Formats: sequence, C-alpha cells, structure tokens
Amino acid sequence: MPKRLSLFALPGIPLVEPGDDLCELIGASLERAGEGLLDGDVLVIAQKIVSKAEGRYVDLNTVEPSPRALELAAKTDKDPRLVELILSESNEIVRHRPGVLIVAHRLGFVLANAGIDSSNVAPQNDGQRVLLLPRDPDGTCARLRTELRARFNKNVAIVINDSVGRAWRVGTVGIALGAAGLESVVDLRGQSDLYGRKLAVSIVGLGDELAAAATILQGEGDEGLPVVLVRGLERSSDQGSGATLVRNEAEDLFR
Amino acid sequence: MPKRLSLFALPGIPLVEPGDDLCELIGASLERAGEGLLDGDVLVIAQKIVSKAEGRYVDLNTVEPSPRALELAAKTDKDPRLVELILSESNEIVRHRPGVLIVAHRLGFVLANAGIDSSNVAPQNDGQRVLLLPRDPDGTCARLRTELRARFNKNVAIVINDSVGRAWRVGTVGIALGAAGLESVVDLRGQSDLYGRKLAVSIVGLGDELAAAATILQGEGDEGLPVVLVRGLERSSDQGSGATLVRNEAEDLFR
Repeated sequence: MPKRLSLFALPGIPLVEPGDDLCELIGASLERAGEGLLDGDVLVIAQKIVSKAEGRYVDLNTVEPSPRALELAAKTDKDPRLVELILSESNEIVRHRPGVLIVAHRLGFVLANAGIDSSNVAPQNDGQRVLLLPRDPDGTCARLRTELRARFNKNVAIVINDSVGRAWRVGTVGIALGAAGLESVVDLRGQSDLYGRKLAVSIVGLGDELAAAATILQGEGDEGLPVVLVRGLERSSDQGSGATLVRNEAEDLFR
Repeated sequence: MPKRLSLFALPGIPLVEPGDDLCELIGASLERAGEGLLDGDVLVIAQKIVSKAEGRYVDLNTVEPSPRALELAAKTDKDPRLVELILSESNEIVRHRPGVLIVAHRLGFVLANAGIDSSNVAPQNDGQRVLLLPRDPDGTCARLRTELRARFNKNVAIVINDSVGRAWRVGTVGIALGAAGLESVVDLRGQSDLYGRKLAVSIVGLGDELAAAATILQGEGDEGLPVVLVRGLERSSDQGSGATLVRNEAEDLFR
C-alpha cells in the first residue's frame, strides 16, 4: 500500500447534458488545470454525471403506476409514479416503511429508491424529472478507461461512485457502483501481519474506500466537483469491477 | 468542501505497548518526518494501537465460558471462550450462523465478533491472546486532541478507525469508532443544489468517509502505518463524535 495519497477535484467540469463525452470533459478539465494523468491514477466520477450523459432522465408525468406501485406508494408515503420507476429498476424490495423504500437494484446494489434522485437534476416540468442510475457502470468505467488511455497514453483506473445509506450507521457514504482498472475487492488472506502470521479473514472493499474518499471532495450540493483524481495508489489491475463489491443474496444475512 | 485533500501515513510508529503515550508517539513521528500539524488537520488512528496502548488484551486461557457462550459457540463453530468475551462486550446478538457472529457492541457498533481480533497482536501463550476494542473511543479522541493542541498549538481533529464488514457489500471498509474536533455527521438538509433547490435528505457520514480513506494507507497486514494525517479538510468543529454515527436501534431496519 502507498504511504501518500492525494485527492484533487477537477475544476470547471460543466453541467453535463445527455450525449456529452465524459472523456472529453475530463480531458479538457485536466488540460485547463495544467494536470496530466500518471500511470496508477484513479479517477472517481460521480454517478450523477454518468447518468446525465446517458440521458437517464424520466419525467414522472409519463409514468403510469401499476396497482402494485399504488399499494406500495400508500405504504411508503411516496409518489406512486416514482414507486413504479423504483420497482422497474429493482429485483427485490428489501425493506419499506413510511418514507422509506429500500430495494435491491437490478445491478445488485441495495439502496433507497433504487438510486433514483432529483437533487442536482435541472428542473423541468415543475420538477417532475428524476434521474436513474447509469445503465452499466462497469461497462462505462471500462470504456472510459480505454478512451483515457488513448488520449493520455496512461494506465488509469476508473470508479463511478454514489452516496448511499447504510444499515446500522447514520449518514451516507460513497460506494463504487462501477470500476475498471483496479481490484475493487482486495483479498489479503494468506498475507502476513506484523508478527508474520497469516491474515485469516481480511477482504478489503478498496473500491468502496476510494469512492468514500472521493465523496468528501465531491460534496452533495452545489459544489460542481463531480470528478476526483486520486494519485498515489498505484495498484492498477485489469481485474476488478463494481459488481464484485455486491454481496450475493444467498450470502447476505441482511436481506 | 475542499478541492484538495492529502493523506500521509506517519512513518516509524513503533509497535505499541500497554501504557504507551499516543500523543508522544505521534508527535515524535511527525518531528522525525519533518512535518508539523496545521489547524484543520485530521489524524486518523487505527483502533488496534489505541487498544494496545490501553492494554485491552485478554488471554483466552483466563476466560470461563458461560452455558450461553457454549451454546452459541456450538452454533457458530467458534471458540467458546472467544464467544464469552464477545457476549461480555455486546448488548445484542444481531445475526449468527456457522462461522459468523455479528453483534451490537456495548458502544452501539454493529460488527462481527464485537471487534475482537488477534491479527497484528503479538503472539503470547500460543496465540491465545486477543484484543478488545478501546474502552471509550470518543473520550480518547477528545483527550488526544487536547494533548496534541498543547504540544503543537494547533486545532486538529482525531478519528479512531476500524475496518468492519457490511450488509450487502463484499469486503471491509474503515469506519469511525471515535471522533473529536470534527462533525462526523454533516447534515446538509436545507443547503442548495446546483439549481438552487434545497437538498431534502442529505446527511453525510463524513467521519466514516475519512476513516475509509485513511484505511487505504493503513492497510490490514504488516504495513505498520497505523496513523494517517489528512490535510485539506479544514472543517474543524468542537462538535462531533463516533457515537453520532451509530444509528439508534429503534430507527434501524436491519437489526
């Protein structure tokens, strides 16, 4: 592991519109800042700009709630059209109560409202527009990694992060929805401790730790800093994905 | 929020023994490294060295398992003496199955084995020695903060972190067991998003995000880097604790 890590929020990333090229936005920001990329750098990108570039907007006025959504909306005090969208993005309802609807997203993430959100979404039609999670975060990370390598000739890793609530703890933290070029789960079993004994159970969610670190700089409000460059990790790998951070339902004691 | 954050693992922290003065160890390491402290710095300290300084060792040979511990040990395939210790450190058994015992620690943290661990614990009596969590992580953070202020005349924040498993996700991440001098939970409700609308539900577990970030440098094995200096946050506050990051049992849907 490295002894130093620096995190730097890329300046001047504009408001992202559907169809925008994230490689171009990131490259232009780096060049304006007089920064390059180094082998081993990690770029952590907020889910929201990936979803925006993919045009993952839905106008709630276009959504027709099913009877099941109407029933669940009544139980959770939520807009039935939003509940319909949440159900369509999910494989399983994990918990619900008034004000709360926690589901397993079709990509496996357990999170409130299937990650559907309207903060930092440009208002349109009386604020009836919401934003879904990206279609394929791991695929997008892999593609961006390839594009950035073509542009900068450097081997970097990409993480797409989002802030989510947790069991047992107060407050959201960043997690990795997608990753490429980085072992997001690091299995230390068999490595040695300070006294030369083998570690028995150490499997580290490195992708989530990077996601959490970057979230500190990205903020949640009007900061406008959706991309964070993490320098110093230097653990590049062609393995690794956001999917490996999702615990299988069968092994999950909290579903 | 800041635009840059740097993390730096303090070099040359020796193996910690019961009674060691953590302020002195940290101060000496900083001086050897030619580093000072700045107002707004955060020092993130691995739980393990706090427990060691407090002498929180228990020799399993001295533990007499109760009937309840014997029963639970059989169900979880664990050493009955370890289970006895886990029970004595806990308020509630949250989940168990063969190989797994997740409890609510008396301080509220939900974690496996009440945080009791033998990795990086110097072997003694055939490896029968284990280490409990610190007695009062928030109190220790507050005291260290005062001591470091007296030594360096700087207003710093302290976090004690540990790596824990999570619901729904693979791998451990760092969380804050204790904190002082830092709002570990940041309530953004009422602040504005990019479009001037109020954020509705944003409460951020900043203490846990810092803990996770520092864990990347601390490692889990033989790195010997238990203290990480985080520079650039500059959000000092006399409020904040590890306890505020613990979700009340009544509000927790996953207990």
